[in-house]
Amino acid sequence: MLGTMLYGTRDVRCEEVPEPKILRPTDAIIRLSASCVCGSDLWPYRGLNEVTEPRAMGHEYCGIVEEVGSAVTTVRPGQFVVGSFCLSDNTCPHCRFGFQSSCRQREFMTGAQAPLARVPLADGTLVATPELPPDDLIPSLLATSDVLGTGWYAADAVRVSEGSSVVVVGDGAVGLMGVLAASQMGAARIIAMSRHKSRQDLALEFGATHIVSERGEAGIAVIKDLTDGIGADAVLECVGTAQSMDQAIASARPGAMIGYVGVPHGVQLDGQRLFFSQTGMLGGPAPVRRFLPHLLDLVLQRKINPGKVFDLTLPLADVAEGYRAMDERRAIKTLLRV
Amino acid sequence: MLGTMLYGTRDVRCEEVPEPKILRPTDAIIRLSASCVCGSDLWPYRGLNEVTEPRAMGHEYCGIVEEVGSAVTTVRPGQFVVGSFCLSDNTCPHCRFGFQSSCRQREFMTGAQAPLARVPLADGTLVATPELPPDDLIPSLLATSDVLGTGWYAADAVRVSEGSSVVVVGDGAVGLMGVLAASQMGAARIIAMSRHKSRQDLALEFGATHIVSERGEAGIAVIKDLTDGIGADAVLECVGTAQSMDQAIASARPGAMIGYVGVPHGVQLDGQRLFFSQTGMLGGPAPVRRFLPHLLDLVLQRKINPGKVFDLTLPLADVAEGYRAMDERRAIKTLLRV
Repeated sequence: MLGTMLYGTRDVRCEEVPEPKILRPTDAIIRLSASCVCGSDLWPYRGLNEVTEPRAMGHEYCGIVEEVGSAVTTVRPGQFVVGSFCLSDNTCPHCRFGFQSSCRQREFMTGAQAPLARVPLADGTLVATPELPPDDLIPSLLATSDVLGTGWYAADAVRVSEGSSVVVVGDGAVGLMGVLAASQMGAARIIAMSRHKSRQDLALEFGATHIVSERGEAGIAVIKDLTDGIGADAVLECVGTAQSMDQAIASARPGAMIGYVGVPHGVQLDGQRLFFSQTGMLGGPAPVRRFLPHLLDLVLQRKINPGKVFDLTLPLADVAEGYRAMDERRAIKTLLRV
Repeated sequence: MLGTMLYGTRDVRCEEVPEPKILRPTDAIIRLSASCVCGSDLWPYRGLNEVTEPRAMGHEYCGIVEEVGSAVTTVRPGQFVVGSFCLSDNTCPHCRFGFQSSCRQREFMTGAQAPLARVPLADGTLVATPELPPDDLIPSLLATSDVLGTGWYAADAVRVSEGSSVVVVGDGAVGLMGVLAASQMGAARIIAMSRHKSRQDLALEFGATHIVSERGEAGIAVIKDLTDGIGADAVLECVGTAQSMDQAIASARPGAMIGYVGVPHGVQLDGQRLFFSQTGMLGGPAPVRRFLPHLLDLVLQRKINPGKVFDLTLPLADVAEGYRAMDERRAIKTLLRV
């Protein structure tokens, strides 16, 4: 079959790869309904994470179960399933605490930018829908696997509440999903920081009430203005750079939490600054599995449409263009027809 | 009157000072029932915070209102009152959000190691008891002003819940109060890290279920053992050094929060470490005012006895010995008869 391999900086290829097989009795093989490129795929693509050997790419997935290992009991061939990019047993103490992304058996999904993929820990990881979903919902169902689940986690980590004010730093796909999550949780004022027209429009569609295009000191000043000089009740940091974290801290009111879901690159936090600003922090790889049943419900009932975040659709053969478009910010997120 | 002045490193003196006067209509003058030395007084005493001019010391207080300014409406002369070390109006948005320690009009109390003290923002800061309390409750009422309120905030910040496991890093007075708070909030397993017999005994009395005297890697290993290999549901960091913060992070299970109330000195937090350990953080100067009514109730109903944290009582004239005894860890906390 065709699959996606990253060979080095800006060298991603669609090429012939072996079909996945059941390796352990807890595995499942799924036939993907669609796949996509993640913002985090761009870290190694850009050479910011080292690539020492060719790597099978893709960790967001949904599709039909093709085959299951002998120990798998909760899903069966023919069912439509979605799973998180973090594979988890969903039974260990960390999973039961709601942090499946720190599961004791945690593995990270790979090889999902392809027509078939192996999903280890299938029982703990996969959630089946009651019936086969209509095709038009596939993009939104695919979004729950990572990008929506991650934005949702950021909003959950800061306990966005009815009527509250929320600042979202970052207008990538995750930030836009953070806007959607905050809106679903009842935030009254959702301030999206973005300087790109197409992303601003999507943020507004997902529930943003204000757009701030300024950055740095100017951005902080506008946020303060928009929150009556107080700062936001909650902040979602969806980038992972020192500047974006700085922006997040400066946007938070004393006692507010920052939910940070962009993998921090070069972020050092000064203890005394956080202490005196009374800024709370909770982040990490999102425990998407915790939220999946609820998110699938919202999509299947057509209450949310996170699939709109895909603004470029390409056949798998053109995966390299899918990466390039995101790298150059021509696309927010690329959906791959597999 | 006599008062306490810090002149420089390890140079604290009890000497004649002017009596405080009402300076603003929102002030009150109180006659202290007792005062005490705070762990944070040791930072400048030890020269770790610079002392550029003689400084009036003391920020923990309770006593009888002597006089109030013309704008004060909620307390009157003759009432017994307690206030926080953070002076606050209790009406601004930060106060209403429960973070009175970031009040827009915030000042820090000074000059309370003396028989009389001026309390600015009296209406927002002071809480009166229904009647004059019996003398034997004075130490516990005094403790609510800072040390108990601070330990309580740490436990509140991490949302200690019924049946949970809590690690308390630091066996100073605040750490011991953190143990008491966690116990009151229903924690089932309270692990106090302490290597001093008298503090261990007090921790057990306040509700600790386990004492860990090991530090560093060995301490982390014992914590892991005591929490079934999982890590604690919540951690209270009551010291403020890089080592204690390290210990706190390593003791926390993924998704656990750290409540940190020791002013961080030289603490840098690595964003990526916190991200992948999924450690939550919330700290800062405690908004004691939020908790005062509840804490006063607990003391007046004799449900808690935080005053036991005072293991040395001295007349004000001997305040220098009070500092010395705490500096040399001969005393946990010094109560001053004023």
